[in-house]
Amino acid sequence: MTDKLIIFDTTLRDGEQSPGASMTKEEKLRIAKQLERLKVDVIEAGFAASSRGDFEAIQAIAAVIKNSTVCSLARAHQQDIEQAAAALRSAEAFRIHTFIATSPLHMEKKLRMTPEQVLEQARSAVRHARQFTNDVEFSPEDSSRSQLDFLCRVLEAVIAEGATTINITDTVGYAMPEHHGQLLRTLRERIPNSERAVWSVHCHNDLGLAVANSLAAVKFGGARQIECTINGLGERAGNTSLEEVVMAVKTRQDYFGLEVGIDTTQIVPTSKLVSQITGFMVQPNKAIVGANAFAHASGIHQDGILKARDTYEIMRAEEVGWSTNKIVLGKLSGRTAFKQRLQELGIALDGENELNTAFMRFKELADRKAEIYDEDIIALVAAGGVASELNEYFKFTSLTQRSISGEEPYACILFTIDGSNVTGEAVGNGPVDATFNAIETQTKSGAELILYSVNAITMGTQAQGEVTVRLSKNGRIVNGVGTDLDIIAASAKAYLAALNKLQSKAQKLNPQVG
Amino acid sequence: MTDKLIIFDTTLRDGEQSPGASMTKEEKLRIAKQLERLKVDVIEAGFAASSRGDFEAIQAIAAVIKNSTVCSLARAHQQDIEQAAAALRSAEAFRIHTFIATSPLHMEKKLRMTPEQVLEQARSAVRHARQFTNDVEFSPEDSSRSQLDFLCRVLEAVIAEGATTINITDTVGYAMPEHHGQLLRTLRERIPNSERAVWSVHCHNDLGLAVANSLAAVKFGGARQIECTINGLGERAGNTSLEEVVMAVKTRQDYFGLEVGIDTTQIVPTSKLVSQITGFMVQPNKAIVGANAFAHASGIHQDGILKARDTYEIMRAEEVGWSTNKIVLGKLSGRTAFKQRLQELGIALDGENELNTAFMRFKELADRKAEIYDEDIIALVAAGGVASELNEYFKFTSLTQRSISGEEPYACILFTIDGSNVTGEAVGNGPVDATFNAIETQTKSGAELILYSVNAITMGTQAQGEVTVRLSKNGRIVNGVGTDLDIIAASAKAYLAALNKLQSKAQKLNPQVG
Repeated sequence: MTDKLIIFDTTLRDGEQSPGASMTKEEKLRIAKQLERLKVDVIEAGFAASSRGDFEAIQAIAAVIKNSTVCSLARAHQQDIEQAAAALRSAEAFRIHTFIATSPLHMEKKLRMTPEQVLEQARSAVRHARQFTNDVEFSPEDSSRSQLDFLCRVLEAVIAEGATTINITDTVGYAMPEHHGQLLRTLRERIPNSERAVWSVHCHNDLGLAVANSLAAVKFGGARQIECTINGLGERAGNTSLEEVVMAVKTRQDYFGLEVGIDTTQIVPTSKLVSQITGFMVQPNKAIVGANAFAHASGIHQDGILKARDTYEIMRAEEVGWSTNKIVLGKLSGRTAFKQRLQELGIALDGENELNTAFMRFKELADRKAEIYDEDIIALVAAGGVASELNEYFKFTSLTQRSISGEEPYACILFTIDGSNVTGEAVGNGPVDATFNAIETQTKSGAELILYSVNAITMGTQAQGEVTVRLSKNGRIVNGVGTDLDIIAASAKAYLAALNKLQSKAQKLNPQVG
Repeated sequence: MTDKLIIFDTTLRDGEQSPGASMTKEEKLRIAKQLERLKVDVIEAGFAASSRGDFEAIQAIAAVIKNSTVCSLARAHQQDIEQAAAALRSAEAFRIHTFIATSPLHMEKKLRMTPEQVLEQARSAVRHARQFTNDVEFSPEDSSRSQLDFLCRVLEAVIAEGATTINITDTVGYAMPEHHGQLLRTLRERIPNSERAVWSVHCHNDLGLAVANSLAAVKFGGARQIECTINGLGERAGNTSLEEVVMAVKTRQDYFGLEVGIDTTQIVPTSKLVSQITGFMVQPNKAIVGANAFAHASGIHQDGILKARDTYEIMRAEEVGWSTNKIVLGKLSGRTAFKQRLQELGIALDGENELNTAFMRFKELADRKAEIYDEDIIALVAAGGVASELNEYFKFTSLTQRSISGEEPYACILFTIDGSNVTGEAVGNGPVDATFNAIETQTKSGAELILYSVNAITMGTQAQGEVTVRLSKNGRIVNGVGTDLDIIAASAKAYLAALNKLQSKAQKLNPQVG
């Protein structure tokens, strides 16, 4: 048993399965680079066989990530495994993660297979995956509701075939920490070849216990890998939060005695990036990354807390990347200062073109806003990705809107569709409604608006508004994010961004695992 | 040991201590009534000695709540205890909750007292409290970092003085579930008179373990009371989430074997009410009460999930109060239909005046919005409380605003200050900024805007926007919430609501306990 805890991030795979969290290739690439900066050990980049888009995103990530292992999910089918291997081929180090359900309920109702068939398929999948890599992970889906004897047989068999990581899943978030720790311990004790694999856990948070279940598996069950996501993103109540398990193991080093490779100062920047890209906001009272998680991050300067910090703080805000001194740029700041700040924020742009586009955006913003904060800069480069902007199908130009007491709110929008200028005008219940109606006069998408939210990026009335729009059409759900000093303009940008996603991405398979 | 688990809700006390979550008396009263409907056993209504406002809120709550015990916090001082007793006097059943820190760090740095002095003060506080009620709770603050021997001495002494509930606190969210369970067990085993008290836990969520720590104390330590808050509201990363512990104990009845009195179908309505009043939004991937926590609550209708629900759901959304069939009202709905829907939603208004005001608001909304959803009705009665509206110092009348491409956004607002009409106009970076500037031309509050967010109350472009504005002035932080079909108007209402709070409420003490 090693004293290193492997952090396996599945924000880009299980996190992305969250309705509305689907991302473009550029967005996934940006997050993957940030995860590498965070020093996660394994990045699950997607599920290659699920869609062309996912395949390409994994391929792109595999090509650039050097310091983390890149992984793709694959059902226990020959074809899925080959697609995963093909997408991962160019990676410095890669892993194939194959899975099949082992609980009676899932085998019968979902797979319609006998246990013997499941066992055989698991075995042959792992054997096949080993032809492409020495790093093969196997997950028995719905482990915590599987029969123990059968689970032992399957796992012994796949380890014999060469599975190097065994990932025990609590797919429905039903486990209790005590049981989850015991389950891992029992499996490791009963399976003769168990020591040849690293044991992992993948928990869901339906009862608020994902972090506790993961930590119990580590402490009492000998697990040495935790699967988790940034902000606990994921279907339903989400997955284990990376930031919470990492800070628990770090803060209670005395209890766990384990090493974690994560650069914790990148936690908050990563959280913000994921939240800005997916539009899944983080509640203020979220542990570690919520705006209130540390007193001083929410703008409070109480003497008492400053006097004796230890009395109420077990971690330092700086340790997880809350910056205390925000360096502010302004309209007089030049290209060099901007570039330097990007570097300090750990934002790497691809080449001079991206830098030029970002700097142009920065100057536009600085003309309208006196002080530019770090959050503004992150938003500037996060929204849609700098490089992808040129290829946008729908692109915002300008907006005029008014609401006059006693009259119906009115909006007139100029934007481009595939490069051609169009103008739409409409009235509505409010200026946002009028703006969306105005866009629809031209795009006629017929998409249904299922979520609309705005958050100010920084404090003060001069803050930029960051709008998230979630649209649903033919069963597909996409998020668009837009930022602007004018929240009606930001709303228009977000709506167009969501339409771009509906336009560009084909439907993908969304299998459930873990 | 009983098989009943007591649910002690401290949303109105520890939850309210969260920066920005402070509430008016009317808001607290509304939440208290909803907590009674939820059937919580004990409602901690506030901290009587902390401010005149808190005293009055406790008094008002004590006067109307019949089926829950009403509790006030009190430091271990004679005066605090007397104030608590005075505020609670009219209650059907009341509890005094007194506390003092017992960890070396807190005794030395915060209290500047010797352990002997602390022991003596704890003892005399409980003795004094028992003169007013037989229901006395004692909390040793920062229990999990206190020395065990000293803790045993203090707790034995206060039980001897008549404390009926002993509440073990993990004030800084540092405990691990295993240790927390052990701590409770050890204390109960070592303290000779331990069986004379009910044991309780109060955990914080800094490492994401508040729920797990509470449940471990119940399962392994014999705790029979959990202190918790709706949505896990509370300072920093907040307190134990009521909805998570309750659903864990209910869903895993096989494991815990305990009864909980909570009416779980009131969980989601309570969550929404607390979120709307405090402006602390709930993230979509929050367990139980997040919009995505149950697949079908987020507008998804996937065949697979509907086909075999058990495969991925361990709870039913209806069980926790997510309504599947939203009954929609419209402009033709009459007073009776509206009143009936209020009753079905469990909303009780005080008398005909409140009902008339609410119905008037409903008709105004129905004139502008074709379909009125349950969420609209909740917002209608939640925003500021219906009754309090008449007494508002600042009150919105109407708004005109525009942003025209190439010009500075402009706003002109009509509102009343203490009954007199005023008009403000201004420009700004965006229409929201212009609107806030226009208000400030008249109010000159000089308050700093530290948070701005918007959420749509329902789906679709016809949704009302719910805006939260958090202002800070002279170290005080208040939230204002405003709703309107027009989000710029909603922003103006929210800003005025926050100014009303700054205007009306005096500074209060904000002690930290548990």
